[in-house]
Amino acid sequence: MITEQFVDASITPLGNLDTLSPHEVARLQDRSNSGLHTLFRQCALAVLNTGSEMDSTRKVLHRFRRFDVQISQKFRDVQLDLINAPASAFVDGEMIQGIREHLFSVLRDLLYVQDELDSGDDELTESERITNLVFHILRHAGAMRPHVKPDTVVCWGGHSINRIEYDYTKKVGYELGLRKMNICTGCGPGAMKGPMKGATIAHSKQRITQGRYLGITEPGIIAAESPNPIVNELLILPDIEKRLEAFVRLGHGIIVFPGGAGTAEEILYILGILLREENAHMPFPLIFTGPEESKTYFETLDKFIAATLGEPARRFYEIITGDAHAVAQRMKERLDEVTRYRKSNGESYHFNWDLMIPLALQQPFEPTHELMEGLNLSLQQPDYALAAQLRCALSGIVAGNVKEPGIRAIEERGPFQLTGDPQVIDALAELLESFVQQRRMKINHEDYVPCFRLAHRA
Amino acid sequence: MITEQFVDASITPLGNLDTLSPHEVARLQDRSNSGLHTLFRQCALAVLNTGSEMDSTRKVLHRFRRFDVQISQKFRDVQLDLINAPASAFVDGEMIQGIREHLFSVLRDLLYVQDELDSGDDELTESERITNLVFHILRHAGAMRPHVKPDTVVCWGGHSINRIEYDYTKKVGYELGLRKMNICTGCGPGAMKGPMKGATIAHSKQRITQGRYLGITEPGIIAAESPNPIVNELLILPDIEKRLEAFVRLGHGIIVFPGGAGTAEEILYILGILLREENAHMPFPLIFTGPEESKTYFETLDKFIAATLGEPARRFYEIITGDAHAVAQRMKERLDEVTRYRKSNGESYHFNWDLMIPLALQQPFEPTHELMEGLNLSLQQPDYALAAQLRCALSGIVAGNVKEPGIRAIEERGPFQLTGDPQVIDALAELLESFVQQRRMKINHEDYVPCFRLAHRA
Amino acid sequence: MITEQFVDASITPLGNLDTLSPHEVARLQDRSNSGLHTLFRQCALAVLNTGSEMDSTRKVLHRFRRFDVQISQKFRDVQLDLINAPASAFVDGEMIQGIREHLFSVLRDLLYVQDELDSGDDELTESERITNLVFHILRHAGAMRPHVKPDTVVCWGGHSINRIEYDYTKKVGYELGLRKMNICTGCGPGAMKGPMKGATIAHSKQRITQGRYLGITEPGIIAAESPNPIVNELLILPDIEKRLEAFVRLGHGIIVFPGGAGTAEEILYILGILLREENAHMPFPLIFTGPEESKTYFETLDKFIAATLGEPARRFYEIITGDAHAVAQRMKERLDEVTRYRKSNGESYHFNWDLMIPLALQQPFEPTHELMEGLNLSLQQPDYALAAQLRCALSGIVAGNVKEPGIRAIEERGPFQLTGDPQVIDALAELLESFVQQRRMKINHEDYVPCFRLAHRA
Amino acid sequence: MITEQFVDASITPLGNLDTLSPHEVARLQDRSNSGLHTLFRQCALAVLNTGSEMDSTRKVLHRFRRFDVQISQKFRDVQLDLINAPASAFVDGEMIQGIREHLFSVLRDLLYVQDELDSGDDELTESERITNLVFHILRHAGAMRPHVKPDTVVCWGGHSINRIEYDYTKKVGYELGLRKMNICTGCGPGAMKGPMKGATIAHSKQRITQGRYLGITEPGIIAAESPNPIVNELLILPDIEKRLEAFVRLGHGIIVFPGGAGTAEEILYILGILLREENAHMPFPLIFTGPEESKTYFETLDKFIAATLGEPARRFYEIITGDAHAVAQRMKERLDEVTRYRKSNGESYHFNWDLMIPLALQQPFEPTHELMEGLNLSLQQPDYALAAQLRCALSGIVAGNVKEPGIRAIEERGPFQLTGDPQVIDALAELLESFVQQRRMKINHEDYVPCFRLAHRA
Repeated sequence: MITEQFVDASITPLGNLDTLSPHEVARLQDRSNSGLHTLFRQCALAVLNTGSEMDSTRKVLHRFRRFDVQISQKFRDVQLDLINAPASAFVDGEMIQGIREHLFSVLRDLLYVQDELDSGDDELTESERITNLVFHILRHAGAMRPHVKPDTVVCWGGHSINRIEYDYTKKVGYELGLRKMNICTGCGPGAMKGPMKGATIAHSKQRITQGRYLGITEPGIIAAESPNPIVNELLILPDIEKRLEAFVRLGHGIIVFPGGAGTAEEILYILGILLREENAHMPFPLIFTGPEESKTYFETLDKFIAATLGEPARRFYEIITGDAHAVAQRMKERLDEVTRYRKSNGESYHFNWDLMIPLALQQPFEPTHELMEGLNLSLQQPDYALAAQLRCALSGIVAGNVKEPGIRAIEERGPFQLTGDPQVIDALAELLESFVQQRRMKINHEDYVPCFRLAHRA
Repeated sequence: MITEQFVDASITPLGNLDTLSPHEVARLQDRSNSGLHTLFRQCALAVLNTGSEMDSTRKVLHRFRRFDVQISQKFRDVQLDLINAPASAFVDGEMIQGIREHLFSVLRDLLYVQDELDSGDDELTESERITNLVFHILRHAGAMRPHVKPDTVVCWGGHSINRIEYDYTKKVGYELGLRKMNICTGCGPGAMKGPMKGATIAHSKQRITQGRYLGITEPGIIAAESPNPIVNELLILPDIEKRLEAFVRLGHGIIVFPGGAGTAEEILYILGILLREENAHMPFPLIFTGPEESKTYFETLDKFIAATLGEPARRFYEIITGDAHAVAQRMKERLDEVTRYRKSNGESYHFNWDLMIPLALQQPFEPTHELMEGLNLSLQQPDYALAAQLRCALSGIVAGNVKEPGIRAIEERGPFQLTGDPQVIDALAELLESFVQQRRMKINHEDYVPCFRLAHRA
Repeated sequence: MITEQFVDASITPLGNLDTLSPHEVARLQDRSNSGLHTLFRQCALAVLNTGSEMDSTRKVLHRFRRFDVQISQKFRDVQLDLINAPASAFVDGEMIQGIREHLFSVLRDLLYVQDELDSGDDELTESERITNLVFHILRHAGAMRPHVKPDTVVCWGGHSINRIEYDYTKKVGYELGLRKMNICTGCGPGAMKGPMKGATIAHSKQRITQGRYLGITEPGIIAAESPNPIVNELLILPDIEKRLEAFVRLGHGIIVFPGGAGTAEEILYILGILLREENAHMPFPLIFTGPEESKTYFETLDKFIAATLGEPARRFYEIITGDAHAVAQRMKERLDEVTRYRKSNGESYHFNWDLMIPLALQQPFEPTHELMEGLNLSLQQPDYALAAQLRCALSGIVAGNVKEPGIRAIEERGPFQLTGDPQVIDALAELLESFVQQRRMKINHEDYVPCFRLAHRA
Repeated sequence: MITEQFVDASITPLGNLDTLSPHEVARLQDRSNSGLHTLFRQCALAVLNTGSEMDSTRKVLHRFRRFDVQISQKFRDVQLDLINAPASAFVDGEMIQGIREHLFSVLRDLLYVQDELDSGDDELTESERITNLVFHILRHAGAMRPHVKPDTVVCWGGHSINRIEYDYTKKVGYELGLRKMNICTGCGPGAMKGPMKGATIAHSKQRITQGRYLGITEPGIIAAESPNPIVNELLILPDIEKRLEAFVRLGHGIIVFPGGAGTAEEILYILGILLREENAHMPFPLIFTGPEESKTYFETLDKFIAATLGEPARRFYEIITGDAHAVAQRMKERLDEVTRYRKSNGESYHFNWDLMIPLALQQPFEPTHELMEGLNLSLQQPDYALAAQLRCALSGIVAGNVKEPGIRAIEERGPFQLTGDPQVIDALAELLESFVQQRRMKINHEDYVPCFRLAHRA
């Protein structure tokens, strides 16, 4: 469907985004390191490159290396001039409206984040400061709906899934949508797109014109997982940890479809939180699901969790296979539980302030060979702490698979080295091996070369 | 998906439909022949029975023979009490909103049509009177959007099509929707549903929340072709001829997908109009399309038209196979032509008053063995007249296949007899034979017994 | 403010009114007796002549005798061409939007009423038929809001009131508006305009953008009482009796300000209804009010009612002077009572079907010298029957004052003669005399010559 | 109308303002000097005290000294608890919606301004920084409408004007509203309220439901000039200079009605800008107007300007008396000129970046006896510089009249001393004397004691 053409176009903004100050325009034009141009160009390209089946940031950047975006200095009409943009963003020469909105969401969030990062607030702890920033970004983007009962279901899962799995994600989305729930995913193809398509059809039947299809991403991943234009609220958080925090504070329940390393990272992140004593009292719906055919996938996963985090960690999720209807009904029940809890505890519906997220899961982890090798994959620590270490390990693998700096590091220095207790390493090996065999690591799986090497700690 | 359950429910109306007069309520309650209850019950059942794969009115009526709908006489809250209603209309006990709207669309149109049929207007010719009635029904239903540029594409085609064809209709709908066109079909599954699903996804990407999915039906066919809940404007015309007139005056262009006898009837109807000298000056987009795999289908059809209506009739349509993108682009071009024509001629955008429809195509044809046998299937008449006769022949076959009175007549008296010139009869035989072989006559095609017999006129 | 200029202009319609059929356009163009052109021209002129201080239909018609309105036959754009229209309807050459809407409300109601009058319904009694027609006109005009709690206050009162009285009507409207009530009047200046202006300011403070300012009029009075452009729902009923019925079935409570013969007619109409046994159980708020300075006015009125309809008739209304705040609070309380009543009795909020209106008050009374002389103004009849007779007497006086046929009849044959029991006639004489002295009969009161003569029945 | 009662009430917020962070709630609760509670309490009181005829901040604060506002710490529902609030803000116990909105506008702006003041930006000059801050506050408040043609008319004038003048401001507002212009004033009674009332009625006639009634104020003046609830966009700028900058960059033209010292300050501010060479090329509509009766007022003012700023300064404004119609037509013409200018120069419609405002007019002037005495009221400086000095002089007089710190300073140290060139001082004396005589200095003018003393510089 996608032709190899490039298109030049001038785009005028939407609504209030037109009212940039000259100072803001200057920052977007600034191609120096302190300026925003490089980041904006990269995210803009990702947004335009929708529908692409390339999940390698590098390949995307290479194909569209002659792409540029210029923001004009005219006061009256802020204007984006796109040069050599992907033709797939256009229909008969006109940009698809959803993509046009995404472009300006990028602009909105990049400008705001820089502003907010500038203005530190000394009265807050580091952890509070990070949570506050996530809150402010979401509020500024208009992503919070006070007084609306919990109805936002986060769907996690792989971008590279097979047809049966994909159709199943659509069915689950359809059943969620029929029950008036909204969908939030991480953007991109596969399990991030299917539930939104299903929900779109269901919302149409239920005459819900304000259905929400939230996409939460970050600059490092967006190029590899272009947002689908169905996403009608695109949020760009500054890094992967704040993106994960946005998911769990904004969403009211989570459904996990089959996926690869990224999905496993997300599962470890949420388990690392739920295992904390401070969160024990709080209902948090977490359902793993896939078609009947994916049964063994979840068995492997379940086994991995038991082997690493221990049997008690299994109480935080339920596994349902091959029954989209049951998944939606169960999620609805659990959301009612969330509603009752928040109501009786005076907690807000729109942002889960109540959830305790350990600083270890908030602080950015930028994988290097040294940091990866230094991860503590041992059972001699609390379960939540091991979850956080494993989360980093998987984050590094995602980077090595699809992110530009990760790929470069692997090219230069070979695979990341992960060492740890035999029980942990063996469980991890089995899990990763199954991902490779099931072709979940990358879309172009034929030529997959693992970016990691596992070893028992001596 | 559909369970065999029955549900009881009370439904309160929407918006202005609440304001019925006691007199109107009485008419809806009236179970006598002059009352509306029987008709309303039948249409209500059809609307509730969505998603069903039964296209036999009789079977539907039999399965839900214990279904009833009562309208309560309370002034303040007009209320519908449904007894033994199909469970498929409900999600967790709550009626799907789209279906709820359909119920009240039925009520709106049945009440209005009776009113309007009462009040004849002596100054008009019979043909003008019929057109005026169609106009008033559509206007009363709010189906006209003055000043909006021609954008409504009628999609005709079979309710019983294969998976490849169905996926293709979705793709065409998607490409039409991306180009901001709206969809109008005859309700029901197959080619009437696919384009709407495709357009829903595309409209979502284009942020079109007011996309139109028009379903035009009539009491005789609605039970066999339940409207899909995506339909957000359901119109019930009083009979098949007024339904066809509504299609061609409200729609701005027509796409024909593969189908059976009903689709052929529709093609003959529009050709019977376009062949009239009076309409020669007017652009009227008509595209036959299907997946590459359906190529021979259209060759058969094309051949049939040439053999019966003559070579010149072929200039009114174009055939495009296997290219959804091209179909949408071509339709868009042709709609621009329609816009230019209407603008320069001072014709309205919302209703094609300009189109001359011969009275022969407006007057109701209720197939009996006598009328079917009496059809003039001869080449010794103008092309448009033969088209009208053939249209009746195919209308009769549809009735014999899926409509309750038709099925009963066939049971009692055997197949309808059609006789005519050898060239016409042979062409017709070939066409119908291909429908049977390609399983286009009924959804449960295994047990299809033809309801017609063809013979050369002596 | 009003200049003597005339303006020519072409006006295109709004929304759905564009979709007229050629047949409807023809009826509006038809200048014969059976056509609608004369009536439409007359009502259109009234609507355009807003802000005028002429209450003589004749004078209006004379000044604008060269005014004409033509409706163009083009299908695509129904267009009104105005010739020699009053300049006061325009601002810098552009028609005030409220007036433009009024023009098309007139068109909507005139076309609809003719349609509905055509289609009789044999199953209904005469009284039911009239009520049904009123209901259908209001529903067709979109004037009913089902499920909305009773909040519509009818304000009756004179078009010719003094500054103190006018300011007081504004204050009452303001207090009603602050309490989120809507206003319904008979159109025109004075007490019909003041409450709407006051409510507009209050609704603005309460951020009510959907405030309703209903104007209910009829072709015979509209020329003398042009609707104020604040009116955002203009309804043209076919005659004065249906207009009165619309007031009492659509409104939820009534406030009566000082006024002349027309106001007295309205009071007698509602008392003629409330005095009926059948309505005894039903709460119906009715408040007479004016500034402190108008105290004697209400004393005269109160005395007149006691003398003619008897002491018990006084229980249906309360009199509050000089306290706009108290009026609004009291009306709010009474509307709550209405809400409770309708709720517990299953009565609709949007149309008072429950109210019994005697046929005598529904049948059109067209005053002639004979009919006026024949009125039975005697105490030897039930109170409600005398109320109906007195209503006719006052209706005739209004006609003789400001309606074209009435004025002509008076010119030709002298004043109307009213005879009756001394007690009734004396009370009437005192009331009418006070109207003349207080300059309530006409706006140009200097030259007021009574159009009636009273006499004791021999 | 205002009773002396006090009311306690709990108010829940509107829309997105509900989503405060715990950190923000804490700042609003903080009663220390660095906290926002004192400022918020003061502004909240002003907003609630609408309709008051007290223009002395001190008296307001004294009467409502027991007033308090508490913001509750519950996450789910940010809630304001008002104690001993002015009863005038309520109708039958329910807060007027417009006032409720104002309360949360205050909260929005106070929180935002503190945030923004925290985050300096080193790359900008002082003047750019101030303009940028004004821009950000307005944008955050949603006060900018990109792409909307210039239509916002700033109305300046006294809060203490007579009935004839007040009615005239209503008429001008009405004529502006009929021409679809929006109104922006400084909040408060008199000339700040009349144009909004007039425009409300006109917008209603023109069916403009989105009419804008902007009120721009600052914490120092808001207590003395409570916003009228018609104001539907209330903006609280941090100080008087930024408030003035907001007027001239957001508004597209200015109308000046009769007023006192504050109005003269505003006139000197805008002349101080327009006299700058850098602004010479730019159309800036400025009309002085009042009823025929106010003719001498404008003669005095005109004379004062000529005497101090010189004859050339007179070319920037036109004076129209007694013709509301002409004022509105002229403003419309001039706004068309503004539109053409901005369009052809690529300037934005929503914020006048192009206008050069000298830093002298941007820097806060907080009047003390020393600073007042030190003002350079000499003709030996450029005209725009003298305008800035005179602006400060009048700003000081306003403070001495109605602002709490000013009144206290006068009480302690006697009147401010102003000295300067005889020509300037004499002109100023004449102007101020006329204000006193015409009772324009304060609402309770009977006891006005001048807060200034003038003297020729030796």
